[in-house]
Amino acid sequence: MVDILKDSFSGSASSQAKTTSVAGEDLRLARSMAKMNQSGLREVMALAVRPGVLSLAVGLPAPELFPMAELAQATTRLLTTDPGSLQYGVPHQPLKAQIVELMAMRGVRCSAEQVFLTSGSQQAMDLLCRLLLDNGGQVLIEETVYDGIQMAIKRQEPEIVTVSTDPHTGIDVDEVESLLVRGARPCFIYVITDGHNPLGVSMSAEKRHRLVELARTYGVPILEDDAYGFLYFDQRPAPPLRALDEKWVFYLGSFSKILAPALRACWTVVPEELAPRLSMLKHAADLDTPSFSHRTISSYLESGYLPTHIESIRDEYRRRRDAMLRAMDEHFPKEVRWNRPSSGMFVWAELPREMDATVLLRAAVETENVAFTPGAAFAANGSKHANHCLRLSFGNNPPARIEEGIRRLARVIKAMLPTGNPIGG
Amino acid sequence: MVDILKDSFSGSASSQAKTTSVAGEDLRLARSMAKMNQSGLREVMALAVRPGVLSLAVGLPAPELFPMAELAQATTRLLTTDPGSLQYGVPHQPLKAQIVELMAMRGVRCSAEQVFLTSGSQQAMDLLCRLLLDNGGQVLIEETVYDGIQMAIKRQEPEIVTVSTDPHTGIDVDEVESLLVRGARPCFIYVITDGHNPLGVSMSAEKRHRLVELARTYGVPILEDDAYGFLYFDQRPAPPLRALDEKWVFYLGSFSKILAPALRACWTVVPEELAPRLSMLKHAADLDTPSFSHRTISSYLESGYLPTHIESIRDEYRRRRDAMLRAMDEHFPKEVRWNRPSSGMFVWAELPREMDATVLLRAAVETENVAFTPGAAFAANGSKHANHCLRLSFGNNPPARIEEGIRRLARVIKAMLPTGNPIGG
Repeated sequence: MVDILKDSFSGSASSQAKTTSVAGEDLRLARSMAKMNQSGLREVMALAVRPGVLSLAVGLPAPELFPMAELAQATTRLLTTDPGSLQYGVPHQPLKAQIVELMAMRGVRCSAEQVFLTSGSQQAMDLLCRLLLDNGGQVLIEETVYDGIQMAIKRQEPEIVTVSTDPHTGIDVDEVESLLVRGARPCFIYVITDGHNPLGVSMSAEKRHRLVELARTYGVPILEDDAYGFLYFDQRPAPPLRALDEKWVFYLGSFSKILAPALRACWTVVPEELAPRLSMLKHAADLDTPSFSHRTISSYLESGYLPTHIESIRDEYRRRRDAMLRAMDEHFPKEVRWNRPSSGMFVWAELPREMDATVLLRAAVETENVAFTPGAAFAANGSKHANHCLRLSFGNNPPARIEEGIRRLARVIKAMLPTGNPIGG
Repeated sequence: MVDILKDSFSGSASSQAKTTSVAGEDLRLARSMAKMNQSGLREVMALAVRPGVLSLAVGLPAPELFPMAELAQATTRLLTTDPGSLQYGVPHQPLKAQIVELMAMRGVRCSAEQVFLTSGSQQAMDLLCRLLLDNGGQVLIEETVYDGIQMAIKRQEPEIVTVSTDPHTGIDVDEVESLLVRGARPCFIYVITDGHNPLGVSMSAEKRHRLVELARTYGVPILEDDAYGFLYFDQRPAPPLRALDEKWVFYLGSFSKILAPALRACWTVVPEELAPRLSMLKHAADLDTPSFSHRTISSYLESGYLPTHIESIRDEYRRRRDAMLRAMDEHFPKEVRWNRPSSGMFVWAELPREMDATVLLRAAVETENVAFTPGAAFAANGSKHANHCLRLSFGNNPPARIEEGIRRLARVIKAMLPTGNPIGG
C-alpha cells in the first residue's frame, strides 16, 4: 500500500475544500465534501517528491524487482489468443483458485467461493466499509495506523475508537479487551498483523490468538490487511489471523507488493455468503473487475514463476532492511530509538519527544535533499502522539542509496537535537 | 457500459439482503445494505446468459473488433522499456493530453487539467455522486434510464425525480423545465445525449441547447454520459452538451466501447477546480489509477491507430444495426413498434401494452434460446411503465446471428400476441 505522499493534490484544494461551494460559482457540493479537507502535512510532503530528493518516504515496492519479461510473456499470450481478456467479464475463476493456493502458502485454508477480487486493497477497504459500517458507526483502530483506512472510513463520519500500539509489540490487545468489556461494539477492528504500515511491527502468536478470541466473543469482525505478509525476512512468522477464524476475520491480500501495483489486483477472503453482497457493492462502485490485469496475473501464476520470485524479492528487501538498520546503528545519535522489523518495508524511529518530525522533514529536504514520512501522517483522529516519530521506508532504494539517505538524515537530526548543540558543538 | 445482466450474483443474495444480519450468524451489516436487495428480474436475466442462448440482451462491444495485435505491441513496448508502467503512479499526463484531442474529435474543447481519469464510467458516476449528492438529496433522471446510474446513486438514498422520455426524441425537456420552475433543485441531472442506453435515441440539437440553458439558469449540473458518442452511423450528430457549457456539464467519456472494456479506462471532463476533489475521493475509493492500462492505451493512441479503428467499428456496428432493423421490418408483427437509432448499440421496441416483456423473455429463452433485456430493467423507481418494452442490442453478434435472433424472437412474440391467435390462428 501507499501513503499520504502518493496522490497528486493541487495546493489549492485545501483552502477550497472547507466550503461546499466552488469559488466564484454557485455549484453546490455534497455536504460531506466539507470534511474532505487536507492537512497541512500534505504541503510538507509535497516537498518530499521533488525531483532529486532521496526519498525514504514512499511505501513503493522496488520497480527493478518487477518481473517484466514474465509479465510480457503473459500479456502477449493473452493478446494473441484470448479476445475475452479485453471484454467485460465476471471475476476470473482460475485466479480465485490460484489465490486459494497462495493463501495456503500463508498458512490459510479457504475456498475459491470465499475469495473476492478487488482493484487494490483500498477498494477492498472501501467496499468492506460500505458493507459493515453505518454512518456514524464505531470503528476500532490503533492510534498509529495506515492512512488508507482512515480515508476509507471518513465518508461515513464514524466514531473512531483508538487503542495504543507499540513499534516493538504492536496493538495493545489488553486495551481492545477493556474497550469491549466496557461495551464498545465497533463495526470492525482494522489491523495489519505482519509488517505493519507504518510501524513495521508484527504481532506475536499470543496476540494473534487473543485478538481473534475477542472478535469471536464479542462478535466484532476484524479487517486483517496482509499487504506485507509475504515479505518476511527471518524465520517464518505465525500465520495471519484468518488462519485462526474464518467467520470473524476478513482478510485483505494484495499483488501490489509481491508482483506489481499498477495491475491493481487484490483480493479479500470473506465468509462465502458475503461475496454476493460485495459483488453488488463493487458493481455500483466500478462495475467490473479489471479483467485484463487479472488474467495477466493468472497467466503469470500458471507459469509457476511466483514462489521463486517471492524468494528473490524477500532476499532483496532483507538486504535493504539490513542496510538501513546498519546505517542507523552507525550514524543515528543515541537519542533516537527505532525498531528492527522482521517483515514489510518500514522502520519506525522516535526522536526525543520535544522534537517535531514535520519540522525535521522540512529541514531534511532543504538542507540534505532527503525525505521520510513524519509520524503525524499516521496518527488516528489527528492526535499528536506521533509528532516526534518518523517512518523510514527501505523498499524503494538499493542498499547504497539507503545508507546514503540515513547518513544525510543523521546529520539533520544531529543539527536539530535540542541537547546536541550546546554540549557537542 | 453494461447492464443488469453482467454481474454474477448468486441466487441466495436476494433473500438474504432483506435483513442486516447474515443467516445463522450475528454479524451486523451496515443498515444501508438492507436496501441493496435484488429484483426478481435478475433471476429471469440469469436465464439469458445460459450457454447456447443467442443473446441480444447484453450491452457488450464485439470482441472480434478489439485491436488485439496493436494492443499487444503496446504492452510489449511498455514491458520491455518502462518498469514505471507497473508502479504506483500519478495519473498519466500524456493520456490526458491525448484525451483532449479525442474530445476535439467530438467537437469539445477542453484542457488536460479538466480531464480526470477513472476506472470505467461507473466509477466516474460513483465519484461524482460522492462529490455532488447529499444523503437524501434530489436527483433528476429519465423514467427510462441506464441502470448503472441507479446503482451509483442508491447508497445516498436520494429523492429520485423522473421525467418522461421517448425512444424517438429522448428526454422531455419541457418536463425538466416545469420541474425546475416549480422549485426542484436536483444535485444533478443525468443524461445520455447520443445513443441512449437503453433507448438508442439521440437528442436533437434544439434539446441540447435548451437543456444546457436550463442547467445554467437554475444552477444544476448535468452528468453527460457519452459512452456511445463515437458510434454514430449516419451523418455526424451535433456535438455533446459539454461543447455548449464547460461549467455545468460534467462529461463522462469511455474507452470501453471504442477500444476494450477490460482496460477499465474512462475519463470525466469537469471544471478544473473540481479535479483535486475527485482525486481525493478516488484515493479513498481505490487509491490509484490502473497505470498499466492507462499507459497501454496511451501507447496505442500514440501510434495513431484510433481514428481508423473507430471508422472500422462504426462501419461494423452500422452493418449490425441495419441487419437488426431489416430483420425486424421483415419478421416482427405490426403490433410491435420500434425506433431506428443513429448511434450506439440498442434498438428499443414496444409490444402492445398488455404484454409483459419479462414473461416474453422467459418464453423466448425456453422455446427459442434467444434473449433480450426487458424494459423493466431500466425503469426508474421501479415503475411499471416499460413493462411491455424490450431493449435489443446489436453490438455483440454478427449480422447473420442478429437476423436469426430476430427471426426467433418474432416467432415467440407472434405466439404470445393477445390478438394474434384468435384471428390469424
